[in-house]
Amino acid sequence: RIGVCYFPEHWPRERWETDVQQMVEAGIDVVRMAEFSWGRIEPERGEFDFEWLDTAVSLLGDAGIDVVLCTPTATPPKWLVDEHPEILQVEPDGTTREFGSRRHYCFNSGVYREESARIAREMTERYADVDAVVGWQTDNEYGCHETVRCYCEDCAAAFREWCRERYDDVDSLNETWGTAFWSQQHGSFAEVDPPRHTAAEHHPSRLLDYARFATESVVDYNDLQAEIIREANDEWFVTHNFMGHFDTLDSFSVGDSLDFATWDSYPTGFAQDRNTEAVTDDRLRAGDPDQVSLNHDLYRGPDGFWVMEQQPGDVNWPPRCPQPGEGAMRLWAHQAVAHGANVVSYFRWRRCRQGQEQYHAGLRKHDGSPDRGYGDASRAAAEFAELGELDGVDAPVALCFSYEDLWALSEQPHAPEFDYWGLVGSFYRALRARGIQVDVVDVSPGADIHLDGYEAVVAPTVHLADESLAGQFEAYVADGGSLLVGPRTGYKLPGNRLQPDLAPGPFADLVGGRVDQHESLPSSVETRLSYRGEEYGYRTWAEWLAPDGGTAVGEYTTGVAAGRPAILEHAVGDGSVTYCGVWPEEDLADALLVGLLDRADVSHAERFPETVRVTPRDGYVWILNFGADPVDIDVGSEAAWHVGDSSIPGFGVGVVEAGLADVSIT
Amino acid sequence: RIGVCYFPEHWPRERWETDVQQMVEAGIDVVRMAEFSWGRIEPERGEFDFEWLDTAVSLLGDAGIDVVLCTPTATPPKWLVDEHPEILQVEPDGTTREFGSRRHYCFNSGVYREESARIAREMTERYADVDAVVGWQTDNEYGCHETVRCYCEDCAAAFREWCRERYDDVDSLNETWGTAFWSQQHGSFAEVDPPRHTAAEHHPSRLLDYARFATESVVDYNDLQAEIIREANDEWFVTHNFMGHFDTLDSFSVGDSLDFATWDSYPTGFAQDRNTEAVTDDRLRAGDPDQVSLNHDLYRGPDGFWVMEQQPGDVNWPPRCPQPGEGAMRLWAHQAVAHGANVVSYFRWRRCRQGQEQYHAGLRKHDGSPDRGYGDASRAAAEFAELGELDGVDAPVALCFSYEDLWALSEQPHAPEFDYWGLVGSFYRALRARGIQVDVVDVSPGADIHLDGYEAVVAPTVHLADESLAGQFEAYVADGGSLLVGPRTGYKLPGNRLQPDLAPGPFADLVGGRVDQHESLPSSVETRLSYRGEEYGYRTWAEWLAPDGGTAVGEYTTGVAAGRPAILEHAVGDGSVTYCGVWPEEDLADALLVGLLDRADVSHAERFPETVRVTPRDGYVWILNFGADPVDIDVGSEAAWHVGDSSIPGFGVGVVEAGLADVSIT
Amino acid sequence: RIGVCYFPEHWPRERWETDVQQMVEAGIDVVRMAEFSWGRIEPERGEFDFEWLDTAVSLLGDAGIDVVLCTPTATPPKWLVDEHPEILQVEPDGTTREFGSRRHYCFNSGVYREESARIAREMTERYADVDAVVGWQTDNEYGCHETVRCYCEDCAAAFREWCRERYDDVDSLNETWGTAFWSQQHGSFAEVDPPRHTAAEHHPSRLLDYARFATESVVDYNDLQAEIIREANDEWFVTHNFMGHFDTLDSFSVGDSLDFATWDSYPTGFAQDRNTEAVTDDRLRAGDPDQVSLNHDLYRGPDGFWVMEQQPGDVNWPPRCPQPGEGAMRLWAHQAVAHGANVVSYFRWRRCRQGQEQYHAGLRKHDGSPDRGYGDASRAAAEFAELGELDGVDAPVALCFSYEDLWALSEQPHAPEFDYWGLVGSFYRALRARGIQVDVVDVSPGADIHLDGYEAVVAPTVHLADESLAGQFEAYVADGGSLLVGPRTGYKLPGNRLQPDLAPGPFADLVGGRVDQHESLPSSVETRLSYRGEEYGYRTWAEWLAPDGGTAVGEYTTGVAAGRPAILEHAVGDGSVTYCGVWPEEDLADALLVGLLDRADVSHAERFPETVRVTPRDGYVWILNFGADPVDIDVGSEAAWHVGDSSIPGFGVGVVEAGLADVSIT
Ligand SMILES: [Zn+2]
Ligand SMILES: [Zn+2]
Ligand SMILES: [Zn+2]
Repeated sequence: RIGVCYFPEHWPRERWETDVQQMVEAGIDVVRMAEFSWGRIEPERGEFDFEWLDTAVSLLGDAGIDVVLCTPTATPPKWLVDEHPEILQVEPDGTTREFGSRRHYCFNSGVYREESARIAREMTERYADVDAVVGWQTDNEYGCHETVRCYCEDCAAAFREWCRERYDDVDSLNETWGTAFWSQQHGSFAEVDPPRHTAAEHHPSRLLDYARFATESVVDYNDLQAEIIREANDEWFVTHNFMGHFDTLDSFSVGDSLDFATWDSYPTGFAQDRNTEAVTDDRLRAGDPDQVSLNHDLYRGPDGFWVMEQQPGDVNWPPRCPQPGEGAMRLWAHQAVAHGANVVSYFRWRRCRQGQEQYHAGLRKHDGSPDRGYGDASRAAAEFAELGELDGVDAPVALCFSYEDLWALSEQPHAPEFDYWGLVGSFYRALRARGIQVDVVDVSPGADIHLDGYEAVVAPTVHLADESLAGQFEAYVADGGSLLVGPRTGYKLPGNRLQPDLAPGPFADLVGGRVDQHESLPSSVETRLSYRGEEYGYRTWAEWLAPDGGTAVGEYTTGVAAGRPAILEHAVGDGSVTYCGVWPEEDLADALLVGLLDRADVSHAERFPETVRVTPRDGYVWILNFGADPVDIDVGSEAAWHVGDSSIPGFGVGVVEAGLADVSIT
Repeated sequence: RIGVCYFPEHWPRERWETDVQQMVEAGIDVVRMAEFSWGRIEPERGEFDFEWLDTAVSLLGDAGIDVVLCTPTATPPKWLVDEHPEILQVEPDGTTREFGSRRHYCFNSGVYREESARIAREMTERYADVDAVVGWQTDNEYGCHETVRCYCEDCAAAFREWCRERYDDVDSLNETWGTAFWSQQHGSFAEVDPPRHTAAEHHPSRLLDYARFATESVVDYNDLQAEIIREANDEWFVTHNFMGHFDTLDSFSVGDSLDFATWDSYPTGFAQDRNTEAVTDDRLRAGDPDQVSLNHDLYRGPDGFWVMEQQPGDVNWPPRCPQPGEGAMRLWAHQAVAHGANVVSYFRWRRCRQGQEQYHAGLRKHDGSPDRGYGDASRAAAEFAELGELDGVDAPVALCFSYEDLWALSEQPHAPEFDYWGLVGSFYRALRARGIQVDVVDVSPGADIHLDGYEAVVAPTVHLADESLAGQFEAYVADGGSLLVGPRTGYKLPGNRLQPDLAPGPFADLVGGRVDQHESLPSSVETRLSYRGEEYGYRTWAEWLAPDGGTAVGEYTTGVAAGRPAILEHAVGDGSVTYCGVWPEEDLADALLVGLLDRADVSHAERFPETVRVTPRDGYVWILNFGADPVDIDVGSEAAWHVGDSSIPGFGVGVVEAGLADVSIT
Repeated sequence: RIGVCYFPEHWPRERWETDVQQMVEAGIDVVRMAEFSWGRIEPERGEFDFEWLDTAVSLLGDAGIDVVLCTPTATPPKWLVDEHPEILQVEPDGTTREFGSRRHYCFNSGVYREESARIAREMTERYADVDAVVGWQTDNEYGCHETVRCYCEDCAAAFREWCRERYDDVDSLNETWGTAFWSQQHGSFAEVDPPRHTAAEHHPSRLLDYARFATESVVDYNDLQAEIIREANDEWFVTHNFMGHFDTLDSFSVGDSLDFATWDSYPTGFAQDRNTEAVTDDRLRAGDPDQVSLNHDLYRGPDGFWVMEQQPGDVNWPPRCPQPGEGAMRLWAHQAVAHGANVVSYFRWRRCRQGQEQYHAGLRKHDGSPDRGYGDASRAAAEFAELGELDGVDAPVALCFSYEDLWALSEQPHAPEFDYWGLVGSFYRALRARGIQVDVVDVSPGADIHLDGYEAVVAPTVHLADESLAGQFEAYVADGGSLLVGPRTGYKLPGNRLQPDLAPGPFADLVGGRVDQHESLPSSVETRLSYRGEEYGYRTWAEWLAPDGGTAVGEYTTGVAAGRPAILEHAVGDGSVTYCGVWPEEDLADALLVGLLDRADVSHAERFPETVRVTPRDGYVWILNFGADPVDIDVGSEAAWHVGDSSIPGFGVGVVEAGLADVSIT
């Protein structure tokens, strides 16, 4: 289904009926509204004006369109800030984040929690019996603009309380963190502060716990809203629109209190501003397909997911803002559906004539005429209607992911280039190049991971680990599973202290060896290894392995490391494990992956170039062309094409009934 | 005339007579003094010591030298700061700008306005009847070191008052800014704050109004001083020394209360620290000629202008400080005069032995001996005396400029490379390469622009616009004018909201089309178009045009844009308009310009290389060589050379009686 | 002797005996402890727990190991910070440097001085009669993380007092600084502030005096501790561990109250994070040998020096953390000894499992097994035992160095590339390439310099100077000395004002000329000169010289400077001076040096490539290979090799009885 984000409050009422009619014509049947509307709904304390929203909801409902409403808490209005300046966030150096953009409130402000509950109650009670409203989005993009972590006094108090609950007595905190280093012992929980500005780097254990605390503050804040929404009408779904490739918020945790997750997908922006790889011409026009798909898979739950905001054309916030390739807005919608999206909702209906996002396109231009995305969205809507209801994604491979690992590694990357997303992305890209559908599994310490159903498991790293976590992997392998594990695994205890033993700590028995040494390296150094007789490149990180039970199947060929083991294989029970002690370059990642898939008997495609992605769902295979050049596909002459045909134009799409292994580029 | 900036307070009194005598020998007949002398004049509150300045003024006066005095308000002394720390400026994050350099005061401090008036009255009354004193410079380089905009409480109060006066009621502010976006409505003027530190970007309309407010604060502050000066002696002129290539101060506005403008010209510094183009060897030695000339033309008024501070040799503040080319200090003086300068005053008489600028040369070295600039200045003085009184500059072409456009575009550049000065400079450089003299015309919203006298008008962009502004351009063209308009024109209303219609909004009828799409592009992308059968390059910004009445004379040949119109021509009334939807590379700018000049029947030179500039004034043509290599000029054998001859050495000058079109490089 | 830094407080007591036994096995006979132990020793105010340290000291003492204890003042514990937050340092913009890392205290806090004295007394009294304790290290790495300079109110008050003591009356301060510039006069010492955040650059004289004041604050603070230590037991030595290549602390001044200096040497880190030169593969693996040796020579006193912390393997803080070359940890120990080290003490015994430095290796891994450095350290210990007691270093050449020059030049570098360490390093590298041992001599204004014993003196610059300082150089030369002086010499008075005369001011008679002009240049400009018939390159800085008595032996061949003198030679009395007006590239530095050494009749080696260094001490020559490739040495067949032989492997060492001039690469 195709949706759109709509801001009636930005436009004259006379226009609304036209808008709704044009939505219907485009095949749009979901509309999100009101996420920044607090100032319009409550222009001064206690004076509510819902009439405009009532009207908009009923116009949409009359047209058969489902409405998703939002709590408007991402933008507390100025009168509230002036009344209670203590709700504002504070930087590590004590500077206040003032009113004038958005997300200026602190999640731990007691005053703001009350105010949030008050406005949420007002809104949800008003629409509790309105049929057109089918569910709610809480707030908007929690944490955008680096606002998960705040350093105000309310946060300091809440962090102390959080530590008290987690550790019970302060000696336990001291022991878990390891505060004997540099005289960082705390005599009581009252002595614990947020990690504010210091002369040198912070204690990594304090940083990690502050990251956890900050995420949990959002969870608590979100729970408060979710509860109020469900109190008003327990048939409503509750969701939130997460961001893409986002670091500071553990979306698994927040997701626990949602019915399903949604996220905001801006491919050409992400390719520029949060990608460690080169910005090619094709990525400028259609994004990095694997970067986007990884987020689809990350947010997909048992009931799928939505793209709540889909890039509609050119946007305002990346370094440069090229026009997307011809048809790219349709391509992205197909990509989302291939990865299990139930709704693809474009942001936004119409380019806005005011404020910070005037340079951000909509499906319609600011004069109301159709913009480039309108045709793309309409075409996608028609094609999805044609394809009908689809089964969910059936992924043979699990990809392990942990926000806590991300945090720990970003505190101590050991090289500017060591980026968690980049490491995970290297393994993920290799899987996608072979057309494999992937489920993303949370492997944070304490997680209860379910690997049973998967033919193979890929863990780019499992950095923080205890015996329990390692045990779950062992059980999976012993039971016949095939596992590929990457570097820096098992280095740290959950408290962000080194394991008592050498890495991979509790994984040592499983992988059949230990890490003798590690090093981080600049790109100026030649870094190569041999794996099963072929030479490959690696980057940034290297471990010198000492096999103990496992077999060295790769060894370094350059530098001080030359001759030392780099990759191990180990048969355990009915299964097997490959441990890769480096960050692999693309060819090595593919070689490791193909080895894993073959051992696990997982069918895969030939290796596609990055600009072409093949993705199976429900008996169909989507062929998605993220390049400007056309591509000819060979899938057998009798295959049934439901969208397009074997000649896929630049930025085009084909959907064919076929098996993954049958599709190739001619 | 040649002048110099003199600081007798830095040197022993015994030396002053020698100094004056050497000035006379050099042909210097204007001296500026006292702009940082408050601490010397009033060492403690109410204790004045004018005796030293009396002496210096009378020594100069006796030698027949005109004296320009300055109010010393750019450097409030420490005792005043300690008495009233509230006069200090404040950063957006709340940090105070402390005593210890200069320009630490806030323009909106009521206390400081009183103190400024007090010291200005003391000084002007003292010299009211001294004949040697011919005029005053207010303060010094308003806004230097990014000090136009302050974020203190006095500024907050003044901004609220400014908003109240501009908008009268707060709903009008809300509507003009467009505060329905992100709940940024204000319930009263008391709720309006300066744009201090926020989590994300500010509302562009708030930013633009703060920029206007800040400039007007300087205007008010300057008016206060100008009034006091004129009260003391209404035959004095009042001026101020502006900076070059400076963003945050609208010099047109400040200029309204001055008799004429002066500015401070440091060619080799500007070429390094505020130029988006490459720093070539020649630019290191003699500056970028067009960058300097643009500022001459910008500050030139009906009565010309002065260079109040002319670079005298090596300076201290650019990244590196090479020695200027041999003779460059004379070259710059000629350049200034060719562009209409009445006085070229070198900064400064002698290298200083104390404080922040010890690495800044003067006409004399710090031991008193002549420095490189002394000979250059003396030679220029003699040559100007020879040439005698000159008529003002007669410019056939107007170049449109708007500080408000500069501010709006720097808030939302849409690409790091999109720089207003750079865009204007591209068109200006093309004009200068053809020897055209240019008047710079203020086209800010609300400006009353006078285009009537010009053969042709070049508007690199007119970004903020209303019907009235567009109407003035239409009238000019309808009346037979020739107009060239660049990209991003007519995008926004004066309040920094998008126009209701597609760009160029109120200019659409005039240019004969609209902007269908725009995009910003990194330099890695190939960006070319064809114009009248030739291929040319463009950069950074591209608009896909939809002709409506106009004719597409250029179209894209690369990228997603290929095949779409890029340049329009439109005949309107007795005139014609060219609309260029891209930032043109040099060859394209030249081709567009030559087309314009030919249509307008403006005589021009052949296209000179950047290091050679030809400039007509009063029947003479200056040939200025900004390169290290000599240049031979062909201007006909009977042409009369008043300075130099047809062989112009590196960094040399020739002045010849000739027509612009007759001059060429052999 | 080989030592190690040991943190028993990080490990279970059961392990300590094993640790001590393994130390003995490695040949370690010095152990440093307790520098960050305050929180462990005094967990709450007045509650002391020394039992653990007593135990550790006695275990070590029983094993025959000397113990160096430290005052633990680098890390005041949280309870103390909470009690007295006013002890925290403050940034120039007013932000507090909070608890959470280390070095958060202000040297001028009266409260903290009392607390420091209290804990120092407690500790020193406790161990006054313990034989195993042989001496003390005060605090730890004064100034690390840029903490020499603090901007708090205590510092403001102390700075005012310091100025009063230095200048007696405020007019003298005004005159010495030159505050007539920009109205910076002070009416009283109460008006003097630290150089906090300002709109533009600070007065260079204020900055320089603040740098002096800050260093002297550390001196005073250190004196306080040294006195307490000596009071407890006057047979103890007192030392401090300085950092390498460190700017803000004058180690000569601090050193005055120490028995000898020690420093902390991390070659592969320094090569990356504080070296202006390229990071080659070899430097990543073994550091830049000359950068490290310069620090050895800088800290070496009449009684030698210690390396208190020697890099033990990979470390955590440089941008990237490669594994050192095979044997590099032994190589560095030999290098230190060749330069006069009495003890080389590795940091640290065992990789830590907690806190900020978990990614920093020790001699043992964190599981207790031997790490790479353990074997290297053991081998070095055995080799040093074999070599026996050695005479001190006998250096024929003095290299002039001044922290005050460093500060003055870093405030006004005049080019981003102008780096004092880099300039000094260029001359030092040329000396080291020829195998010359060098003493580093303090030539700050006011220093009493002893040049008499040296065959030759190299002064890369003597920037701040008065007649007295210049006179000492003149006396040296007149007496037959050979002197080489570099650029920017004699520019400034000690107060950081230009000399009354042209540079080199008081050195003009000595060098036989003056500086007519100077310029700083980007690397894009071609910069060459001819010296005695050969062409050479220079960089960054150039002076155009005017000989007056001296002879021009070098002149510029490129740019505006072409044809002007660049290098002077001058015979004075029985000696001679070469003045070099540029920053020389390597070949020119070598040519100048060889000229100097030949004139002074100093024997030197052939010119070695950077990765091979030959160093004489006590009849031996060390051949140190800092490259991965092996090197064959020719030193005559009968030469006695005490360590290694003529085939030196990559990162290997040879020690041979020979003369410097006899050693060459085959
Ligand atoms: Zn907070
Ligand atoms: Zn202010
Ligand atoms: Zn302090």
